[in-house]
Amino acid sequence: MADKPSVIRETDDPARKQARVLLRSARSAAFAVVEPNSDGFPFVSRVLLGMDTDGTPVILVSALSTHTQALAADPRCSLLTGEIGKGDPLAHPRLTVQCTAMKVPRESTEHARVRERFVRRHPKAQLYVDFPDFSFFRLVPVKASMNGGFGRAFLMEAADLLIESPAVAELAEIEAGAIAHMNADHADAAGHYARTYCGAKGEKWRICGIDAAGLDLASGDQLKRLEFDAPLQNTSGLRPLLKKLYG
Amino acid sequence: MADKPSVIRETDDPARKQARVLLRSARSAAFAVVEPNSDGFPFVSRVLLGMDTDGTPVILVSALSTHTQALAADPRCSLLTGEIGKGDPLAHPRLTVQCTAMKVPRESTEHARVRERFVRRHPKAQLYVDFPDFSFFRLVPVKASMNGGFGRAFLMEAADLLIESPAVAELAEIEAGAIAHMNADHADAAGHYARTYCGAKGEKWRICGIDAAGLDLASGDQLKRLEFDAPLQNTSGLRPLLKKLYG
Repeated sequence: MADKPSVIRETDDPARKQARVLLRSARSAAFAVVEPNSDGFPFVSRVLLGMDTDGTPVILVSALSTHTQALAADPRCSLLTGEIGKGDPLAHPRLTVQCTAMKVPRESTEHARVRERFVRRHPKAQLYVDFPDFSFFRLVPVKASMNGGFGRAFLMEAADLLIESPAVAELAEIEAGAIAHMNADHADAAGHYARTYCGAKGEKWRICGIDAAGLDLASGDQLKRLEFDAPLQNTSGLRPLLKKLYG
Repeated sequence: MADKPSVIRETDDPARKQARVLLRSARSAAFAVVEPNSDGFPFVSRVLLGMDTDGTPVILVSALSTHTQALAADPRCSLLTGEIGKGDPLAHPRLTVQCTAMKVPRESTEHARVRERFVRRHPKAQLYVDFPDFSFFRLVPVKASMNGGFGRAFLMEAADLLIESPAVAELAEIEAGAIAHMNADHADAAGHYARTYCGAKGEKWRICGIDAAGLDLASGDQLKRLEFDAPLQNTSGLRPLLKKLYG
């Protein structure tokens, strides 16, 4: 099963890509923290998952919840993503990421960015995202382990999950406009990307995230991640790449 | 969301029943432990879930996995069950159980019992259940919290999740025979129970567990839990109850 030292494989690019897709296409995650005032008892609950433009996972949580109180006392936490499909639940790939949680200050550029991305990914969060007891945390990866199915175990570093490109910040600035343009003027593109590159089915696909490493695609309850072959190095590369992917 | 002190409801019988069903109908769970040699870093992975006859959750894990190594150093752990259905992942009920893991010694009556029940619930586990590096752990509940959907948060004690009846041990002894009889001679009963009492669909249902508090029903990837109105107090009550439930 998971994490056998004897079957740990060397982390290669296909494994990195699989791990990134497992993380970036997850709508929700199991979220483990250290229970406050428990002398270290683990506590696992469920959270909605968002992503920052540099690949850092983001959560939106209430100050009154156990996990948020836990993070205030100990920022160390762990995420589990990867859907349980048909058949044996252990036959499906899943990713464990151990992280350090950093609260996102309100009224910061960072807050505006993660809020916008989170709500675009989870439109219903609009209902409570601005409640005074709700806060965003960036879950900065420390390390990860992936079980890609029986006998396919990998250990990973934070760098394997983060997006490294000089274009990260500039792409974040044009992201909302580019998404609005694509979804309005090239409304069929999202569906084409999802079906062609992500094995998706169904209609009504929309782009809900663009970063240097790929696209987030949503349709109803489905969330897919299209990873580019290599991260964009500048914003001017975005338009030709989107066009090329459209075929 | 989860665990708001201000919205914690008083635990009543419907909440207890909901929590028991969330735990007992789960094929797998997110499983949080304290990573070994990490000074307390949480680590969450996925496990197949079984149940002992007294309602104690059971897992089957490899000695080489991180979670098993973690339990050897610190037996405190936490389970998350509750499937993510359609729509908002946070709108679906889920249960967090904090437990103390106790390894089940091989060659014990306990081992024979949990092994038999686990394999009946997860037939594919037959392939590795007897591998020398695999062990069963009983995860003895300490406390639990349930989020039964928005605004429905409950805190629970171990007793809310365990099966208390003088018939537990005796029922365990006749369980295999009773199940074989029902599945062979009343093959349509399991489907009737699943459809009538558990809102299930589909065919090929079989009984895969009988204990003092209810029935475990399986069909392909589906696992349903039929909770009796009250636990059986003696084995002689089983037959008339199964007949009555058949209507």
